[in-house]
Amino acid sequence: MANVAKKVSWSGRDPRDDEDDRAGETTPLLNGTGPGAAGGARQVRRGWAHGDQWGSMGLNGDQWGSMGSLWVYSSLDYDNSENQLFLEEERRINHAAFRTVEIKRWVICAMIGILTGLVACFIDIVVENLAGLKYRVVKDNIDKFTEKGGLSFSLLLWAILNASVVMVGSVIVAFIEPVAAGSGIPQIKCYLNGVKIPHVVRLKTLVIKVCGVILSVVGGLAVGKEGPMIHSGAVIAAGISQGRSTSLKRDFKIFEYFRRDTEKRDFVSAGAAAGVSAAFGAPVGGVLFSLEEGASFWNQFLTWRIFFASMISTFTLNSVLSVYHGNAWDLSSPGLINFGRFDTEKMGYTIQEIPIFIFMGVVGGILGALFNALNYWLTMFRIRYIHRPCLQVIEAMLVAAVTAAVGFVMIYCSRDCQPIQGSSVAYPLQLFCADGEYNSMATAFFNTPEKSVVNLFHDPPGSYNPMTLGMFTLMYFFLACWTYGLTVSAGVFIPSLLIGAAWGRLFGISLSYLTKGSIWADPGKYALMGAAAQLGGIVRMTLSLTVIMMEATGNVTYGFPIMLVLMTAKIVGDYFVEGLYDMHIQLQSVPFLHWEAPVTSHSLTAREVMSTPVTCLRRIERVGTVVDILSDTSSNHNGFPVVESNPNTTQVAGLRGLILRSQLIVLLKHKVFVERANLSLVQRRLKLKDFRDAYPRFPPIQSIHVSQDERECMIDLSEFMNPSPYTVPQEASLPRVFKLFRALGLRHLVVVNNHNEVVGMVTRKDLARYRLGKEGLEELSLAQT
Amino acid sequence: MANVAKKVSWSGRDPRDDEDDRAGETTPLLNGTGPGAAGGARQVRRGWAHGDQWGSMGLNGDQWGSMGSLWVYSSLDYDNSENQLFLEEERRINHAAFRTVEIKRWVICAMIGILTGLVACFIDIVVENLAGLKYRVVKDNIDKFTEKGGLSFSLLLWAILNASVVMVGSVIVAFIEPVAAGSGIPQIKCYLNGVKIPHVVRLKTLVIKVCGVILSVVGGLAVGKEGPMIHSGAVIAAGISQGRSTSLKRDFKIFEYFRRDTEKRDFVSAGAAAGVSAAFGAPVGGVLFSLEEGASFWNQFLTWRIFFASMISTFTLNSVLSVYHGNAWDLSSPGLINFGRFDTEKMGYTIQEIPIFIFMGVVGGILGALFNALNYWLTMFRIRYIHRPCLQVIEAMLVAAVTAAVGFVMIYCSRDCQPIQGSSVAYPLQLFCADGEYNSMATAFFNTPEKSVVNLFHDPPGSYNPMTLGMFTLMYFFLACWTYGLTVSAGVFIPSLLIGAAWGRLFGISLSYLTKGSIWADPGKYALMGAAAQLGGIVRMTLSLTVIMMEATGNVTYGFPIMLVLMTAKIVGDYFVEGLYDMHIQLQSVPFLHWEAPVTSHSLTAREVMSTPVTCLRRIERVGTVVDILSDTSSNHNGFPVVESNPNTTQVAGLRGLILRSQLIVLLKHKVFVERANLSLVQRRLKLKDFRDAYPRFPPIQSIHVSQDERECMIDLSEFMNPSPYTVPQEASLPRVFKLFRALGLRHLVVVNNHNEVVGMVTRKDLARYRLGKEGLEELSLAQT
Repeated sequence: MANVAKKVSWSGRDPRDDEDDRAGETTPLLNGTGPGAAGGARQVRRGWAHGDQWGSMGLNGDQWGSMGSLWVYSSLDYDNSENQLFLEEERRINHAAFRTVEIKRWVICAMIGILTGLVACFIDIVVENLAGLKYRVVKDNIDKFTEKGGLSFSLLLWAILNASVVMVGSVIVAFIEPVAAGSGIPQIKCYLNGVKIPHVVRLKTLVIKVCGVILSVVGGLAVGKEGPMIHSGAVIAAGISQGRSTSLKRDFKIFEYFRRDTEKRDFVSAGAAAGVSAAFGAPVGGVLFSLEEGASFWNQFLTWRIFFASMISTFTLNSVLSVYHGNAWDLSSPGLINFGRFDTEKMGYTIQEIPIFIFMGVVGGILGALFNALNYWLTMFRIRYIHRPCLQVIEAMLVAAVTAAVGFVMIYCSRDCQPIQGSSVAYPLQLFCADGEYNSMATAFFNTPEKSVVNLFHDPPGSYNPMTLGMFTLMYFFLACWTYGLTVSAGVFIPSLLIGAAWGRLFGISLSYLTKGSIWADPGKYALMGAAAQLGGIVRMTLSLTVIMMEATGNVTYGFPIMLVLMTAKIVGDYFVEGLYDMHIQLQSVPFLHWEAPVTSHSLTAREVMSTPVTCLRRIERVGTVVDILSDTSSNHNGFPVVESNPNTTQVAGLRGLILRSQLIVLLKHKVFVERANLSLVQRRLKLKDFRDAYPRFPPIQSIHVSQDERECMIDLSEFMNPSPYTVPQEASLPRVFKLFRALGLRHLVVVNNHNEVVGMVTRKDLARYRLGKEGLEELSLAQT
Repeated sequence: MANVAKKVSWSGRDPRDDEDDRAGETTPLLNGTGPGAAGGARQVRRGWAHGDQWGSMGLNGDQWGSMGSLWVYSSLDYDNSENQLFLEEERRINHAAFRTVEIKRWVICAMIGILTGLVACFIDIVVENLAGLKYRVVKDNIDKFTEKGGLSFSLLLWAILNASVVMVGSVIVAFIEPVAAGSGIPQIKCYLNGVKIPHVVRLKTLVIKVCGVILSVVGGLAVGKEGPMIHSGAVIAAGISQGRSTSLKRDFKIFEYFRRDTEKRDFVSAGAAAGVSAAFGAPVGGVLFSLEEGASFWNQFLTWRIFFASMISTFTLNSVLSVYHGNAWDLSSPGLINFGRFDTEKMGYTIQEIPIFIFMGVVGGILGALFNALNYWLTMFRIRYIHRPCLQVIEAMLVAAVTAAVGFVMIYCSRDCQPIQGSSVAYPLQLFCADGEYNSMATAFFNTPEKSVVNLFHDPPGSYNPMTLGMFTLMYFFLACWTYGLTVSAGVFIPSLLIGAAWGRLFGISLSYLTKGSIWADPGKYALMGAAAQLGGIVRMTLSLTVIMMEATGNVTYGFPIMLVLMTAKIVGDYFVEGLYDMHIQLQSVPFLHWEAPVTSHSLTAREVMSTPVTCLRRIERVGTVVDILSDTSSNHNGFPVVESNPNTTQVAGLRGLILRSQLIVLLKHKVFVERANLSLVQRRLKLKDFRDAYPRFPPIQSIHVSQDERECMIDLSEFMNPSPYTVPQEASLPRVFKLFRALGLRHLVVVNNHNEVVGMVTRKDLARYRLGKEGLEELSLAQT
């Protein structure tokens, strides 16, 4: 890490002057010492991981890096461009038509819920059958060789089975759709935050994701199938709401009204919520997840629709799985994982236990931070050395084989035999145990992680040997850490819960031993708290995770201690290192906007934060100028203020509106311009439909041919620009600018002076680069948007 | 209702021209046909209930009306005034100090939770004891007279007991603090929406509320004690967060940082959530209630604190009540009402039942609408004829006596005897039943409504005679309807649930009869759905109510049907008449902002919506001018744009900032001005503390003496004004203006032209007056803010 660039502290000067080559072009207004600079916030550019060589690289190293030397994320625009076309359409639509639109929204949400539920069912059923098949084959083999000797054949069989299944899973991800790797939660967090990572909501991604997660789980990796459901739900939502699929090249000509970022993002929120709901049987938790991660502006109707999608999703999953399991009307499988019922009568808690829970939260926070730190180093290593898809596949296979080997050795070495009677083990492995007994370590490895979690919660006291649990925790911790970030589709929720449940149960057993078997020291309860602590320590989710845990346990009483545990884990973990998802988002240099501007950033004003100079367009502009501006790869702006005066003579000009790159592209494509000599002629009319048809994949400017004659034509932007863009005065403080930008989900915010003349532009990147570090305000380097 | 003023439809002209006397003063810019007017939205001023004579009157008629011929609500300002003083303070505060502030916020939330929980405990315990005492006295009396004859003495005793208890409850409300009447939920909704109803968060209100609700419930009215908890929580929050009590005239000199609307409103959200949480044992429901009703901008940290307060609240209640009930560590009373456990095993539902549930939702919607319509007429009657406090007290006593009489007559006429064995009736009334049996009708009336609800949910099939249930439903419906709106503190949640549970159970019994006793037709399940349907039909809450019901039943599986029922009830009910709370809010002409602007309002622009002309101040202004402007009772503005040019010569002037009435008052009070001759002298410095000490009860301008010499002094506003107020261009459409206003919780939004010159001002009232009626866009007349 050569470029640990510590930027010198500054006071009183525009920080951009130092680095911005274009600073010389800034107008006099922009120089000098702003009042905001007086506070003298210390500004340090973080170098340790955000240097330029990785600034452009993705989680998976080369695939992303290879797409271009500098990856360009696109921002979503949650603000409607209220141009004349839009207003005319809205004014044409009467009350009844709006009701139809509203009904369509509900229908789409229902479809999102149903499809997400069905996808979850599909994953669940396929995993159950394939994993069952695998465990039976291996078990039969082990049973055979236990008698005959030569168990190394069994080990080999198990390892090869795992590795080959994982190989397939890894190949499809690495070679076909790298964005399907991992849980997808960081990507969806980014999407809901307003940053679109390429390919993230495509049908192809969904297919690879679903197949990938099945193969990862069947391949015996230390992964869960829950996290990817969130991504799956989001893709389903994005697809359905647009009424077409670009991957399939089908346009169903429905839901055309929803073809814009605002609407699409709302539906993706619903999809993510439906995914959480299907994964954990937690519809309210799903809604809160979506809101916690994405919503900036809380809208009651939207929330209600999100909730509807969530409910439908868990209900669909529940119905189908109930039918599949043969008890059609039982409705006992609300989620992919169900923690089983925690009865308050049997397993209540007392006030004295609360300090113990808080202590567990501290442990979870520390272990979570350790997990994240290890994973961080591992990810750095991967970005540097494991670029190529084939290397990534080999690594995944290696992990699969090692997981099998570790499991086997631990089972082999373990002498922890438990009576088979009364236990609910699916694949009891006798191995060297006496008849009527099974190897207890084997249950932990010879099971999907979901089942192991539930067993740890609910097996009666005495089911596990402390030694077994300790070894298992240790091994699984490192395996899970190694696994997260592999080029496979997989989630980290279940492994985290499993690690936590294991040490939590161990803790409970120790406590019971120390207190000489007090009735309240039920190991299952401590397993639950440990699971919460570990998961909280890794992902640092708070409100939504509490509710998810409450819903998954079906127990409201545990809400209070779970909340305390999660809060403690978050506080302790945050002291060391940030959450796993945030870490990976930052490794990708995504311009992620947090909830609030850093508290100490009042000393910065819009003047210092904004980008300047701004490329402006005139209301009636030469086509050639437009083409040149759009073709300028060095600036690559996406929004242009439209001004009245001549932008060539002075950068300062009265603001009249804002037009987007995508709109200009459509205008050029449809040749919406008139000859300079015939300015009185009416230029061709466009409809909103023309813009919607091009959404979201607007052609690049290079693909549009403009002849030399056409370059001399004029284009009238009045009708297409947004005549009332949001603006801030240049004296506004950063928190104020941030609040406006975040609350309204903006993409461009024009900074004006006292005469309403454009002096700068604030985009997501300008705001996202400030954050509160240990030493005060820091400035990050981010990827281009 | 004489003034059914149907305003003529307009097209193309500024709608304000017709009614605004000041229209002549508008600048040329403001006249003419705006592009927005082209759509020709039809605009009808609603006259049926919002005519002028009631526009200023409160829920309880005269008390509020008598405070002034036109009641002035004040708006809350969720936008910090970022003036120099504020910025200087924020810049002085370092990172560690911000952490201290954050910790203080958490401490306050914990205190809010604890105190709210304790208040709930107090109410619960006192009600239980007093009501128990009353029922025992009446029961003994009835038992005595059943043998001897002369039951009319018992009736008299019962009626007098009720009426006298209710009299006390009504007197304290009517004569001491009228704002404590009702559930307080409409008032808290308004507060969270940004409208402050006078006295609503004062300590005195809390005391009267708590005593009032105890007396209402003990007095046997058809009311619940749950709704008022929300108001109580809000008052507690407002009190604690300010670190002082004006009622007690104590200032603890703590939490001074939180003495502004922004922070106070956040804490009140937490308090309301804590109240819901304590009332229903629903911490998540509480958070969602607060968010659904209040939050416009979702902030993760705020939500997490609200959740914390909710959790602490239910935990406190649970602990204290458990200790009180003698099973210290049981933690089985999370709320004031607990619906008891609904076991999925015993009472599951099947997919075929879903249409039945939806039908119940329809019934609930219709009955709810009927309830609301009846209550509306009743409220109109009360506003007109029952003005005086003594009349109100008499009405309350009458209702109490009638309730007792109705109960008695129904018990007397009922011949529905049930075996006493195996039932859990608290006060079994034998009356004319055989030994070992009790009168089943008596259990319904001889109980707090909470207990009756739980009985209806959980009593085994066959406990109730259909005839009894039918009569009870009918009677209770009218009693509850009559009771809501009386001058007593009381909630409508429990009566609604009780009515719904009664007809729901009746429905379940009929269904069981029709299907010849199918196993799935459990009447308890239908009682639950009926309760949800009825409550949903009356209050029209959606997401939060679903979660509250889920948490109160401790059953996640019922979430889906409850959601369907609530949704159906809302849709059906909304078709007829709006929700009870919204109705009462509208009766008070509160400028309540809904979630979105009416969908068809794109045809209106800021130009047509704004108030104009605007009273502007110069940056350095004559004190006399300021005093005159503030003293002008006809305008009574609360915010003034500060402009550079001379506002006397032209209304159009370059915007430099915004200053609030309250700030000006403080400036005048502290004589912050210099003589005109000595403009170079530095005027007196003020600190933020001076503004905070005056918050929230700024003295009226009349109380500030300004001598004739002082009137000629000059006041420099630069340091105190907010230099970067949010602005919109005059072409912005109403939905766009609305979104900005709502998302940021503004109080004043300045409308500017292309040269950043002030042309108008949008306040809450300008936006709240548009709503979507059956015939398109309507314009309401609202009280002054």
